[in-house]
Amino acid sequence: MTTLKAFPSRVVATETQKIMWTVKVIGFSVLAASVSVELLNWLRRRYKARKTLNEVIFFPSELGCVEHLLRPSLPYPCYCALPHGVETSLSRLLRHILSASSSLDLCVFSFSNMDLCRAVLALHQKGVIIRVLSDKQYIAISGSQIGPLRQAGICVRSDVGSVYMHHKFALVDGSILITGSLNWTLTAVQGNMENLIVTMEPELVRPYIQEFNRLWEINDPLKHPNSVQAF
Amino acid sequence: MTTLKAFPSRVVATETQKIMWTVKVIGFSVLAASVSVELLNWLRRRYKARKTLNEVIFFPSELGCVEHLLRPSLPYPCYCALPHGVETSLSRLLRHILSASSSLDLCVFSFSNMDLCRAVLALHQKGVIIRVLSDKQYIAISGSQIGPLRQAGICVRSDVGSVYMHHKFALVDGSILITGSLNWTLTAVQGNMENLIVTMEPELVRPYIQEFNRLWEINDPLKHPNSVQAF
Repeated sequence: MTTLKAFPSRVVATETQKIMWTVKVIGFSVLAASVSVELLNWLRRRYKARKTLNEVIFFPSELGCVEHLLRPSLPYPCYCALPHGVETSLSRLLRHILSASSSLDLCVFSFSNMDLCRAVLALHQKGVIIRVLSDKQYIAISGSQIGPLRQAGICVRSDVGSVYMHHKFALVDGSILITGSLNWTLTAVQGNMENLIVTMEPELVRPYIQEFNRLWEINDPLKHPNSVQAF
Repeated sequence: MTTLKAFPSRVVATETQKIMWTVKVIGFSVLAASVSVELLNWLRRRYKARKTLNEVIFFPSELGCVEHLLRPSLPYPCYCALPHGVETSLSRLLRHILSASSSLDLCVFSFSNMDLCRAVLALHQKGVIIRVLSDKQYIAISGSQIGPLRQAGICVRSDVGSVYMHHKFALVDGSILITGSLNWTLTAVQGNMENLIVTMEPELVRPYIQEFNRLWEINDPLKHPNSVQAF
């Protein structure tokens, strides 16, 4: 009888414990699963963010009209003799440059390409802050577009120290790096074999931002009153 | 009595079901946890692999002896007048080039730097497969190191089509890309402001491998019997 009396109470106690234990297991599983999902999502977002932009562009560029990029208000297609509606290396480069909404830092050895100059002037008219660093000798060669940039009020500095300021890179909004072998000239765009990397990889972008700011500061004409900042 | 008889059997049945159910929950939790851990590990490895190498090197290089890199069997330091034991932009570049264990594909406009030439020759002696593409005009200028490379038995091709073959990139073991504004010349290394990206980012490395192979094929001298592959 004692056994019979004790049995149900033990059963109830054990059952309650088991239910509680099961609830704990389920709770723990749900917690672990949600933490895992959160972690996976975080890693996926991080991975995706890193994948956002890593592009390579090779030149010479195919021929194609870029007027619709430089003057988007014009009816498309325009009436020039170049092929229309084709994506070319130049149009891809122009799209990246024209995507600037706040700043464009440009550090380029030779700048004589008129389409690229028009893109920079269009950004300047939109209010994008533009800084240009160029080589002291190539800044004044025939066909250089540095003159028109300065005439439009864009701040241009030339280097005072090295043999050549041989860089060819641009920083769009301080987050997109465009760099490679390509000078901003017609020959480079249309005639040469050239390459460009377009990336948002922070480990690559950050050093170029630091280097641009360093070069911008050391080439401040106020620090070199005797140097000639060629027009 | 019927109730008393039925009670324990129902309890046993319910308890067995609950135990089985709990076992299933635990099994599922363990499975879910292990899959999550595996996934996290995979993402961590992938994330880590992507972080392996993303480096930027700026020039001009500081002065420093690189003899210990080119002739590691020599007692260190050597007896030249250059500073020893300093890490410079050139030594960082040399380390990446000398890390090649199977192949080095080099696509460079101008190649006259003797330290870089010695590094390529050292790799060739080690059995690393080397392919060099260079510009048809700059391949034969005074001081060009293309001659010594060919004399050592390294396969060199020059381009036959473009205005300039203006690339300056190298592919180490088909996995490390070195690219930027730097020609492989003494002036570029010691005098100019230049930049290099060293990366293992697959999205960046892959297009350069494809472009190198494309250029290598189209510039096969057998396909252009009338072209002069300058020495």
